[in-house]
Amino acid sequence: MKKLIAEFIGTLWLVLGGCGSAVLAAGFPDLGIGFVGVSIAFGLTVVTMAYAIGHISGCHLNPAVSVGLWVGGRFDSKELIPYIVSQVLGALVGAGILYVIATGKSGVDLGGFASNGFGEASPGGYSMTAAFVTEVVMTFFFLIVILGATHSKAPAGFAGLAIGLALVLIHLISIPVTNTSVNPARSTSQAIFAGGIYLQQVWLFWIAPIIGAVLAGIAYKILSPEKE
Amino acid sequence: MKKLIAEFIGTLWLVLGGCGSAVLAAGFPDLGIGFVGVSIAFGLTVVTMAYAIGHISGCHLNPAVSVGLWVGGRFDSKELIPYIVSQVLGALVGAGILYVIATGKSGVDLGGFASNGFGEASPGGYSMTAAFVTEVVMTFFFLIVILGATHSKAPAGFAGLAIGLALVLIHLISIPVTNTSVNPARSTSQAIFAGGIYLQQVWLFWIAPIIGAVLAGIAYKILSPEKE
Amino acid sequence: MKKLIAEFIGTLWLVLGGCGSAVLAAGFPDLGIGFVGVSIAFGLTVVTMAYAIGHISGCHLNPAVSVGLWVGGRFDSKELIPYIVSQVLGALVGAGILYVIATGKSGVDLGGFASNGFGEASPGGYSMTAAFVTEVVMTFFFLIVILGATHSKAPAGFAGLAIGLALVLIHLISIPVTNTSVNPARSTSQAIFAGGIYLQQVWLFWIAPIIGAVLAGIAYKILSPEKE
Amino acid sequence: MKKLIAEFIGTLWLVLGGCGSAVLAAGFPDLGIGFVGVSIAFGLTVVTMAYAIGHISGCHLNPAVSVGLWVGGRFDSKELIPYIVSQVLGALVGAGILYVIATGKSGVDLGGFASNGFGEASPGGYSMTAAFVTEVVMTFFFLIVILGATHSKAPAGFAGLAIGLALVLIHLISIPVTNTSVNPARSTSQAIFAGGIYLQQVWLFWIAPIIGAVLAGIAYKILSPEKE
Repeated sequence: MKKLIAEFIGTLWLVLGGCGSAVLAAGFPDLGIGFVGVSIAFGLTVVTMAYAIGHISGCHLNPAVSVGLWVGGRFDSKELIPYIVSQVLGALVGAGILYVIATGKSGVDLGGFASNGFGEASPGGYSMTAAFVTEVVMTFFFLIVILGATHSKAPAGFAGLAIGLALVLIHLISIPVTNTSVNPARSTSQAIFAGGIYLQQVWLFWIAPIIGAVLAGIAYKILSPEKE
Repeated sequence: MKKLIAEFIGTLWLVLGGCGSAVLAAGFPDLGIGFVGVSIAFGLTVVTMAYAIGHISGCHLNPAVSVGLWVGGRFDSKELIPYIVSQVLGALVGAGILYVIATGKSGVDLGGFASNGFGEASPGGYSMTAAFVTEVVMTFFFLIVILGATHSKAPAGFAGLAIGLALVLIHLISIPVTNTSVNPARSTSQAIFAGGIYLQQVWLFWIAPIIGAVLAGIAYKILSPEKE
Repeated sequence: MKKLIAEFIGTLWLVLGGCGSAVLAAGFPDLGIGFVGVSIAFGLTVVTMAYAIGHISGCHLNPAVSVGLWVGGRFDSKELIPYIVSQVLGALVGAGILYVIATGKSGVDLGGFASNGFGEASPGGYSMTAAFVTEVVMTFFFLIVILGATHSKAPAGFAGLAIGLALVLIHLISIPVTNTSVNPARSTSQAIFAGGIYLQQVWLFWIAPIIGAVLAGIAYKILSPEKE
Repeated sequence: MKKLIAEFIGTLWLVLGGCGSAVLAAGFPDLGIGFVGVSIAFGLTVVTMAYAIGHISGCHLNPAVSVGLWVGGRFDSKELIPYIVSQVLGALVGAGILYVIATGKSGVDLGGFASNGFGEASPGGYSMTAAFVTEVVMTFFFLIVILGATHSKAPAGFAGLAIGLALVLIHLISIPVTNTSVNPARSTSQAIFAGGIYLQQVWLFWIAPIIGAVLAGIAYKILSPEKE
């Protein structure tokens, strides 16, 4: 139960922090943080939670991560569904808190509320195919970093940094394409608030990240040193 | 006594570094550091002091942090008031040094002197309610990271990084709302120099961060693994 | 064989991440990541892979690094050619994936596809001599950091961070001069897609980085403490 | 002798990297790195060298650091002058390499060549008094971080990160005031190339940082836990 509370709190923070920086601060006149700031913010939600709750729940904060770790033999199948439910609920509450804050000024236009999308809903107008490839590949490498950095032969203690910085990097690359998901919970929470086209497209941000995670789980089994 | 000097010096550095970057460098023409630079600066004041004085005083630098650690059972009640006094005094001296530097050119307009505020004193014009929610929630997560990363089961040595990077993240999210406090000492020192509306609003930046910190101290007791 | 797969995957990620951030996100209107974001992205490809695959292949991801480590007595000559082949193939596949994503929108102009160059192909119009000096010197220091940070007397575990951050730094300095190579594999993959002047100039980005790496391998032998 | 070569190489890198990023990349049209990028670059020269040569020479790279460590009882007086000579020579060679690169294009105007200055030579037009206070205070805190993070009670291995990030922070605050020195070697090398007013003002960037360092050496003796 403590694990599920930890995943709830952590995913809440991922959405509030990452999407919050995008909604509140990215486009602030003159001094706004832009895509660089949003990328750093998403990554730091994971860095901070990795050290805060990593020793409680493992700090997945992402259904694709839980699936990838399960395929890679690092996570118990019994815990998979409860983790994913906690993550989605945490994301929804995070989006709700962000909604309360973001609407606390006059004349606000929330736009896509930091939702993910493709085609006309892509920040840079990228096609569904480009979006699909991007989300599969980015999630694949995210899981390769997670599986590798938490391996017993990797230097102890650094995994939280490496994994969080991987998320910074993934955002630096792919915000223009899909606004960067690699996380179905984060996509779902924002799409529910934004509605319309974002909600219609949310399927891609479940399927593509999970495909990428499954492929990484299989690939890392082949790649990894035998003893763990 | 060494602890109190350390808290004084550390909080002085937090205010001089964080608010200093905002006052001196954020809006510099063309090459200014913007909210990203200010966010990094605030966080790095904590990272640097965590490794410099963490082994002396614990490096709280913030009355809300001291209260949260006390509620969480990590800090002795006898030391609470002396720590807070040292922090506020350090913040005031930091603001004073910044004032000397910042006024050392002709035609300077200090504006809000990096004060915190809501309503018309909010950088983005956010309401008192939005500001209050933001400060409670941000301080809550700041303390969750502090309590978690300094837990005996977290990887040793990384707490200073995780906590400082949490402060980077919090600023990336919330500068547009309140100019980001989560620290009553930092708010008080700037408000005293800025006066007017900033001084009238400083109460919120004592009450909201302390509420967030108390809630986190209670929540982490529930969440944390039993043995410390 | 696992080592070669790891080098393939890692170099693929370096090119996809570093060049991908440049092609997709650097010049995005208003919110683009600029040279700072591209610099961080290149460095983080190395940080993330260092912790993910460092314990498998050593995480070279770069023919100049393999040569410098070989000259410095840290890498077996038998493995040199297979590593370099894997790196170049990985880079090519990374560039191919990037090409698929980047062309997934209408009206796209790939420009130099993040290729390296000098003279009219230099971002800032720097001469061949300036480019040559820059690539020799930057790769020299990159290898000094690699050889030093992986030395047995350096603090264990931090090498991946130090080396990746060295690549951030090298890009912050030298993108205007050559678009920053210090890596023949990364230069070759982009030049093959960009063609023309970029392909004609790719020789410099093999010769200059390898000269810098060889000099560093020799220099560090003189500099290093005797026992390893 | 190896120590002196290490200090020479390290200070060369500090100047080439830090000042190089400023001269070559800070003001690049549209995509330039600004003060944020320059701040990160200066700090990363120290992070990278700390892990590369810290185990050889201690990685001072700065006459004020050597003086502060000597006053703090951490550095042998016999080595003080040789270290400072190596640092200044390394800085000069670094500035020379930068000069060769920076002039390798047509129509270049080197301006102040990243020199430090006050009054009309201050980026933001700050007075001599403001510059003096800034350099004393910034160097004081730089040495507090160095003395604290390298103390035997601080977490092992993190000092290089904490100290380098302190230099990032110091630049984020004070580039507008003096272009940030806290390092007489770095100031001297640039002033010799820039000449004129910069050379006339270089005295301040020896005196103020050394005063700050001496004060920190004394203060940390009072502050530090008794056993080292």
